[in-house]
Parts: sequence; C-alpha cells; structure tokens
Amino acid sequence: MKRLIQGLHEFQTTYFNTHRELFELLSQGQHPKFLFITCSDSRIDPNLITQTEPGEMFIIRNAGNIIPPYGATNGGEGAAVEYAVHALGIEEIIVCGHSHCGAMKGLLKIEKLEDEMPAVYQWLKHAEATRRIMKEHYQGYEGEDLLNASIQENVLTQLENLRTYPVVQSRLKAGKMHLHAWVYEIETGEVLEYNALQGQFLPPNTQFGRIAWLSKEQQERIYKGSYSKNS
Amino acid sequence: MKRLIQGLHEFQTTYFNTHRELFELLSQGQHPKFLFITCSDSRIDPNLITQTEPGEMFIIRNAGNIIPPYGATNGGEGAAVEYAVHALGIEEIIVCGHSHCGAMKGLLKIEKLEDEMPAVYQWLKHAEATRRIMKEHYQGYEGEDLLNASIQENVLTQLENLRTYPVVQSRLKAGKMHLHAWVYEIETGEVLEYNALQGQFLPPNTQFGRIAWLSKEQQERIYKGSYSKNS
Amino acid sequence: MKRLIQGLHEFQTTYFNTHRELFELLSQGQHPKFLFITCSDSRIDPNLITQTEPGEMFIIRNAGNIIPPYGATNGGEGAAVEYAVHALGIEEIIVCGHSHCGAMKGLLKIEKLEDEMPAVYQWLKHAEATRRIMKEHYQGYEGEDLLNASIQENVLTQLENLRTYPVVQSRLKAGKMHLHAWVYEIETGEVLEYNALQGQFLPPNTQFGRIAWLSKEQQERIYKGSYSKNS
Amino acid sequence: MKRLIQGLHEFQTTYFNTHRELFELLSQGQHPKFLFITCSDSRIDPNLITQTEPGEMFIIRNAGNIIPPYGATNGGEGAAVEYAVHALGIEEIIVCGHSHCGAMKGLLKIEKLEDEMPAVYQWLKHAEATRRIMKEHYQGYEGEDLLNASIQENVLTQLENLRTYPVVQSRLKAGKMHLHAWVYEIETGEVLEYNALQGQFLPPNTQFGRIAWLSKEQQERIYKGSYSKNS
Repeated sequence: MKRLIQGLHEFQTTYFNTHRELFELLSQGQHPKFLFITCSDSRIDPNLITQTEPGEMFIIRNAGNIIPPYGATNGGEGAAVEYAVHALGIEEIIVCGHSHCGAMKGLLKIEKLEDEMPAVYQWLKHAEATRRIMKEHYQGYEGEDLLNASIQENVLTQLENLRTYPVVQSRLKAGKMHLHAWVYEIETGEVLEYNALQGQFLPPNTQFGRIAWLSKEQQERIYKGSYSKNS
Repeated sequence: MKRLIQGLHEFQTTYFNTHRELFELLSQGQHPKFLFITCSDSRIDPNLITQTEPGEMFIIRNAGNIIPPYGATNGGEGAAVEYAVHALGIEEIIVCGHSHCGAMKGLLKIEKLEDEMPAVYQWLKHAEATRRIMKEHYQGYEGEDLLNASIQENVLTQLENLRTYPVVQSRLKAGKMHLHAWVYEIETGEVLEYNALQGQFLPPNTQFGRIAWLSKEQQERIYKGSYSKNS
Repeated sequence: MKRLIQGLHEFQTTYFNTHRELFELLSQGQHPKFLFITCSDSRIDPNLITQTEPGEMFIIRNAGNIIPPYGATNGGEGAAVEYAVHALGIEEIIVCGHSHCGAMKGLLKIEKLEDEMPAVYQWLKHAEATRRIMKEHYQGYEGEDLLNASIQENVLTQLENLRTYPVVQSRLKAGKMHLHAWVYEIETGEVLEYNALQGQFLPPNTQFGRIAWLSKEQQERIYKGSYSKNS
Repeated sequence: MKRLIQGLHEFQTTYFNTHRELFELLSQGQHPKFLFITCSDSRIDPNLITQTEPGEMFIIRNAGNIIPPYGATNGGEGAAVEYAVHALGIEEIIVCGHSHCGAMKGLLKIEKLEDEMPAVYQWLKHAEATRRIMKEHYQGYEGEDLLNASIQENVLTQLENLRTYPVVQSRLKAGKMHLHAWVYEIETGEVLEYNALQGQFLPPNTQFGRIAWLSKEQQERIYKGSYSKNS
C-alpha cells in the first residue's frame, strides 16, 4: 500500500497543486459530456487514453464492459446508465472494449468457469449473444483472430443492450443520443471505432471524413440503425 | 466527440510514444496489485490521484461505489471481485468514496427517486445499511455534515458486504487479504483512510505512524476483525 | 400423531400446571434477550441445552443454520432477524451449528444434490464461502475431521453474513450488539464458542477467564472487529 | 450471556448426564417422525409443549410460521421441507401458529411496516392469502377476535402452500403424507387442531373420536381435501 500512499502525496504536490481552480470548480458539481463504459482491466486508463481531465467522463467499469439488457440484472450497471442519462443529461455513450480481454477469453471457454468462478460464469451469460455470434459466424477462426473478433462483436452486443434502457431509448428517439463502439489495442495504443457505413472497426478520423459525403438524413438513418454489417 | 478523438491522437503522440515498452509488456498480461472500487463520478480519476500507471489497478466503477452482499445481485460487481481475487490474485482492496457524491445524496432522499430513476432507486437499496445507520445514529446532522458522514459510513458498509464474498473470506482467513476504506475529497485532493484503531477517517500517513506502537501481529489481529482463525 | 397428542396433554398436566403464572405473563408480551439461530436438525433442542424457559430466546431454525447475506434471498431469515433486532430490541445473537450436520455433509458433496434435492442445492449456495474455505484451506482433511471443520467454518461464515443486515450493522456501530459463534456436539452435550482472541472454538467458560486479562474496552474493540466507529 | 453459559453447564450435569445413551444413539443419525413448523416467537418451545425428546421432531422456525409457495422464495424454508421429506422420509407435517402472534399483528397493519422493517414487510407478502381472506370474510371482526381468526386462517394458508412442494405433493398422492394445522394458545397451554370435518379448530382428541363415525374412504376424502369450511 506504500506505493499508493506515496502516489496520493505526489498527486497533491504536483497535479492537484497546479489545478486547484479546476478542483474548486468541480467541487460545485459535475457536468460530464460522456459516459464511458469499459473493462475493469488494469491496463486501461480511460482519462489517459482520451487525454481528458477530471469532470469530463462519467465512467462504468466491470469485467468485460458488459451492460446487461434492461431488467436482466439488479446490479450497478443500470443505475449508473440511468443516472448518467437522466440526472446528468449525457448524450454521448462510448462502450470501449480492449485487446487481450480476460473476460472475452473466459467467454470463449465458459464451461470451464462454472466451478472455479461461479460469479464470473453467471455474469458472462449477459454476453451470451456475443458467444452465439462467435459460434455461428466465426467457425473458421482460432486463437488471436477469434479473440479479437469476439472483442469487437461484444462491444456491438453491448450497444444493442444499451438501446433497451428506457432513458436511452427515449433520447435516441429524440435524436439526442449517440452510441459509440470502441476497441482499444493495448500494444499500439490505438482505438478503433465501429463504422456503421463500412460495417467495420476503423480509426475514428477516417470515419469523420467519409460521413461527410452523405446528407444529414442519410447519416442519421445509418447511424441510428442496428449494427449489422449490411447496413 | 471531436474532443475525445483528438485526445486519442494526443495520447498516441505523447504518453504512448514515451511508454512503448510498458504497453508492449502489458500486452502480454496484467498483474495488478490493487482492486480499486470507486464511484462512476466523472471527477475521480483513480490512476491520477494515486499516480499509478496502466497495469497497476483493477478498477470497478459504479454509482456510489457499492458492492452488494454476495448473492444479493447478479450484476457485474460480484464477477469483477471474483476475477480480481481468484484469477489475478489481488490481495489489497480499496473502496474509495468521495465528497459531493450524488449517489449518497440520492440515498438521503431515496423516496423521491422511485418514480424518476427506478434503477437508481433499486440499486441504492444495497446501501440500506448506510441509510439505516444515518437514520439511527446521526439525528442531529444536516446538509454537508450529514452527507459527509453518510459517504464515510457507506464505505464501511461496503467493506462489510465485501467480506461476504467467498473468495474474499477465504483469503481473509489466510491472512492474505487487506480491505481499505478511503474517502477522496475533491476540493482538497486529499484522501482519508479509515483507521480501525482510532475509529476515524484519518490521513493515511498518520495512520502508519500511530499503528507503529503495536506489534505487527497486534495490528493484523485488530485490523482483520474478529472472525479469522489466524487472528 | 398419538405420541404428540398425548404429549400435549402431559405438558398441560405437568409443566404448564406448575408454570401458570409464567404463561399468564408471557401472554401479555415477549421480551427475549437472545436470538438463537440453529439447524432444523431434530437432535437440537435450544431451550433444553441452554436450560432456558419459554420467553427467553427468539429462535430461527433452518437446514444448516444459514443466514444468507442481506438481500441475497427473500426467505424468512431476513425478516426474522429484522424483527428480533428492530421490534424486540435483541442485542445478543447466537449462531449455533452442531456435530453430524446433514446440511454440511451435503455441502461437501453438493454436486450430488442438484437432481435429487434442488431446493437444498440452491439453499446451500448461501454457504458457498464455507465450501470455498474448505476447498482452499483444508486439503489434507477427510471424513469426520473435514465435516467438523466445515461445521465450525460455516458458523463463522454466517456471522459475516449477519453483519450485512442494516439493523445488525446499525446496532454493532452503537456497540449494542454481540454476535456469538457456537457449535453443539451431540455426543458430549458440550458447546464450544468461537474465541476471536485465540482464533479457536473453546468451552465458553475458558473464554471468560482468558478475556479477563483485558480491559472491557479492549475486549469490546477486538470482539466487534474492525469497522465500528466506537472501537 | 452468563445466563446461557450457566444453562449449558446445568444441561450437562442434569439432563445430559441422565440421557447419555440417547445422545450416543442420536450421534449416529436422526430419524424424526415429525416436521414441526412454527413461529420464531420466544414463547413457544415445540419439544416442551409436545413433551418430545431430542431426535423426534425436525423443526423449522421463522416469523409467522410461513411456508411460501414452492418457487416463491429462495430462502431456507423450501430446502428444509425438501430435506425433511426426501432425505428423512418424514410423513407427518405440523404447522403450528400461536396466540398473540406478532407477525399476524403486523400482517393486519402491513402498510405501516414498509419503512421501519422492509424485510418483514416483504416476507409477510407470503401470507397475502391470509390477509385477503381476513379482508373479504371477516369484516365484522376487530381486535383480539380479528387477530385470532387471522392466526387460524394463516395456518390453513400455509398448509395450502405446503401442498405446492413437489416432494409433498408426491407423498400426498401416495397417501403417505399427513398435514396438520395447529394453534397453540399461550395463556392456556392448549393446542387446537383444525378439524376438516367440522371446519373448525378443536381439541385434538375430540377429533379422533368424531372421525371414527365415518368410513375410511369418507375420512380419506375429507382429510385429503382442501381446507374450506364446506368440505
């Protein structure tokens, strides 16, 4: 624990010291623009990879960046989504998976988890759609390729689940809510975003360029739609 | 979203560029020493306030840094705790609350939430012990004082809940697990840790000093509470 | 049933006849000092082994003297604990396991129960912490030794679970609640109590002797474990 | 606690001392003939009022002697019923309510419990059939009369619930299971049993006499039937 206690002191004498005004302001309330949902994995630091400061992102973290469909659990995920959207008025939600995800590795051999880690086993059932997609659409895949595909598919699965939340659905209908599917690659530091037009995960800037070709209505229609490759 | 996309690029050209070896290493596996459980609140950046790097802390974040008693929910909290302890072998768990916590504000007027935010309402029932303690032990308290006390009490409540997890209990019994109760104050950047000897939240370094009066065995015994066989 | 009907008559002409005043008094209200939680096993008679009279102990009995963590079930255990503590003001809670416990035998071979006794199988999941502790800390144990250790460990597990109940936590905080772990041995008629200082189950009188070395405050602090403010 | 510790010693030097053979025998296994389900109320001592010895009755005790319908909860009641019938082969089940029952008092003013005792409030929902019967069939009743009627009705409600358990249903079909509804009156020490023929609670011996008038088939039909007054 010494490591952490020293870190707390270092934080105070460095970052906090040079950002006193920011923290003073933040103590009066939070107004984050983003809900960032990612894995508990220690290798991800959401504020670091987006270079955001305290106050900018409301963050949910669990094993596998899973958001169960509305009503499927009574855990913390639903409450945090509801609070983010209803109480804080957030309109941009990012689900961010990552390479080498232990939860997805677990999902691909879920039968081995029941005895050793019963709670993980139960929890991964909320990624059952991902597991089924892998089984029925990726027969030829193995090893890293299979894992990487499952990481991408899982992020899309969780976006579908997010769409089942009443507060999200209502905002989507109003055109005031945008859902983003990201995958962060630990070894390259790169993030890919799902591009509904291309049906692929691509570097985010590329996407901005391409979408500019389309009319606003076309973009909307494509963007709000479901996340199948044929859209 | 432009803000975030630009951040991703900035991260790559700055931090990632100067830490390539770290990320190369991390891509081969994570070995975090700490499980850090905190609120989804945007104003907390766990890695920033502890000055830790990617790979050091496995992180669970939800509204109110709540860990329901084992079996009380089927949400992500139990799975993440189990994975952290069983699969990653983590032996230090920190539950970190924070000043101005919206979830605790909600808890203190929970009857108003049922209609507006039903998922938040249900979720806060897992902090019912906190609510009851506030009602029965803090009758004279109001406003900020009441809120601050509830933030501290809630962190202690969640430690009790954590102790019901089989993987946690088994490690506690082996004397290989330590639970820490922290509260982070946004306006001062300070963290206070619960000191079981003093029965108070104190700056963590003070605590090291005071505990030095006792032998290691005595400290352990008192800190680990009553029910471990090795105490 | 004849056996029981005759017993009812015998009770009236003997015990009831000589204790009319007690029952007259009891008909006006109950003021038990103890909540006694034990197994449904026919071989245990809580009032007999403690030589207490009607009116002294509020009693919960189920298979395995299990109290699931708060919120983990919607069965009768939580309601009875709440009623005992809140409505009756009870401050002493005893969880009493016993030798040759069928529920613990079941726990040690739980995989065989799922088909034959599904409700028992589900119920024993609330003793999962006990099962995990047995698996991880008692590898060398077999037969009677394994069973006896699991009976002791299970009583301690249930005390941890009890601590998650809001009414219990609130009283613990006030220093007005004491939790006791007992094991009753059918063949010797002896009860052993968990001694937190020694980390062992010992005859209760021995314990009083030993604890006498410490001041009242010290005993309290150690016994109540780490998280009460008054410790 | 001194009171209890002294009781343990007294038990050893008196009862246990004169019943060594019984306890030696019991340590080899239990073979109870009866499952006795009663309230946690401190004023009831099942073995005392039936003058039975250790080993004769398997006992479930909770607030209000409630056995929720099969599948309605995941608490200990179902597991204990299943164990009693399937593992121990018990064929006689007694549900025993009692005068001045606090749980039934609570049921009659359930709306006042939600805030103060939420677990009791939830639990009493499993006696909702009793509450509805009181509301719809006992409009003229008040005070003691209303309470006494609800105590009787509740015992019958719980017998209906018991009949929903697969192990119970299967034995009932085989004609090998008998369910008994008792009410114990604290002030008189008397037990009344529900007499299906008369549709009334009567002293148990009376019942034996009356049933002798009927043919075996008639008795069976009436006995196995539901517990409405018109049967």
